Amino acid sequence: MTETLLFGVLGGMGPLATLDLLQKMIEAMPAKRDQEHLPVVTWNVPQIPDRQKALAGKGESPLPQLLHAVQQLNRLNVSHIAIPCNTAHHWYPQLAAASRAPILHLVDIAAAQIAHLHPRPQRVGIIATEATLQAGWYQQRLAALGIDVILPTEQELRTLFVPGCYAVKRGENTLGGQLLQELATALINRGAEKLVLACTEIPLAFNAVASPLRAASVDPAYALAQHCVALWQCFMREAHH
Amino acid sequence: MTETLLFGVLGGMGPLATLDLLQKMIEAMPAKRDQEHLPVVTWNVPQIPDRQKALAGKGESPLPQLLHAVQQLNRLNVSHIAIPCNTAHHWYPQLAAASRAPILHLVDIAAAQIAHLHPRPQRVGIIATEATLQAGWYQQRLAALGIDVILPTEQELRTLFVPGCYAVKRGENTLGGQLLQELATALINRGAEKLVLACTEIPLAFNAVASPLRAASVDPAYALAQHCVALWQCFMREAHH
Repeated sequence: MTETLLFGVLGGMGPLATLDLLQKMIEAMPAKRDQEHLPVVTWNVPQIPDRQKALAGKGESPLPQLLHAVQQLNRLNVSHIAIPCNTAHHWYPQLAAASRAPILHLVDIAAAQIAHLHPRPQRVGIIATEATLQAGWYQQRLAALGIDVILPTEQELRTLFVPGCYAVKRGENTLGGQLLQELATALINRGAEKLVLACTEIPLAFNAVASPLRAASVDPAYALAQHCVALWQCFMREAHH
Repeated sequence: MTETLLFGVLGGMGPLATLDLLQKMIEAMPAKRDQEHLPVVTWNVPQIPDRQKALAGKGESPLPQLLHAVQQLNRLNVSHIAIPCNTAHHWYPQLAAASRAPILHLVDIAAAQIAHLHPRPQRVGIIATEATLQAGWYQQRLAALGIDVILPTEQELRTLFVPGCYAVKRGENTLGGQLLQELATALINRGAEKLVLACTEIPLAFNAVASPLRAASVDPAYALAQHCVALWQCFMREAHH
């Protein structure tokens, strides 16, 4: 048995989305005092090439910095690594191969949460980067659950998603919220019963405008936080046996 | 010259106060994209004995865990260490002696900010743990600036500060805000022109009740964030020469 758990967060993509995961790790834990919260070490170093631009062939690869972060977290003997960035999961195979600690897969964890929704939605909209959508991670997992997906158009990605996402990265969360809520509304109007907020900037934007669509959304970052809490609770039960 | 800066945050005291510092590090940075924010690695491991209880002689010392955290941050070659907990500065001498990276002193940084206030206040109230008040760190530095201090009474500490502080640690920030605002108002009524929020749980509590007293407050955690941003900006200017 591991001596203890220590969650490593490979963050920085962006730095505010990383804090959002850390905040959700605290919210998801039914703790009554400091000492009951998750032990977490966070590598929040945003000096790493833009993931979206790299995958569009317009910039250098972030892989060297991602591998460095995985190595540094492993030096601290983390028991698990979480990456609060969907797009960065493009490099998941290389990072998992280079890590002693298992890397939690954000998309698998989000899909497991969708599989347990009651009633299970028939049509789900996905808001994500072009790279995440092209990789097909969410589409494949939802198809396996018998769920139809509703995707943004190329024009919606260009005029709503990309400016909305980068507005959050500039700290203009309200502007980001207006743009991303317009995109989300379009997906709802095309029949989506639920939305997957498959880019970790989106919840920050929705919060800034107190979007009513949060209630119709699955937030992979929150699912990841809940997964870490469940791992910790399971470990603590075993440790007391 | 250092190859680059990497800020280490020794957190967990409490975990939410740690996120508050990280949030302020983002707010204090005039960044237009992810890559312009501070590089930060955060040890947010709250499995560490209660600092207030240890200093009241009612619990074990947190020093071994604090030293472990300092060692782990140094293993990652951090250039500076910040500790978002006033009370933990009781062990500052031992931690600084054990750290290769310099440890930023929260109280020195807060006092420097107070020294630059225009107009300089004549009477400043201090809200802090009993241990921080007994150590006299803020009183000594304010006296050196010719500023009178106004302190909570023992009864105010027992009936307002302690329950307010531990309410935040339980996640009951609104209750914490009500109690701490009552204490803050009492200090204002006794003549304090400004308040030093010398416990990192207080700003979270004040935010939860949108306290109007925030405008009359000096927040050492925000001063610490601004100090880190200034160090980074200075480093970046030098690096481009």
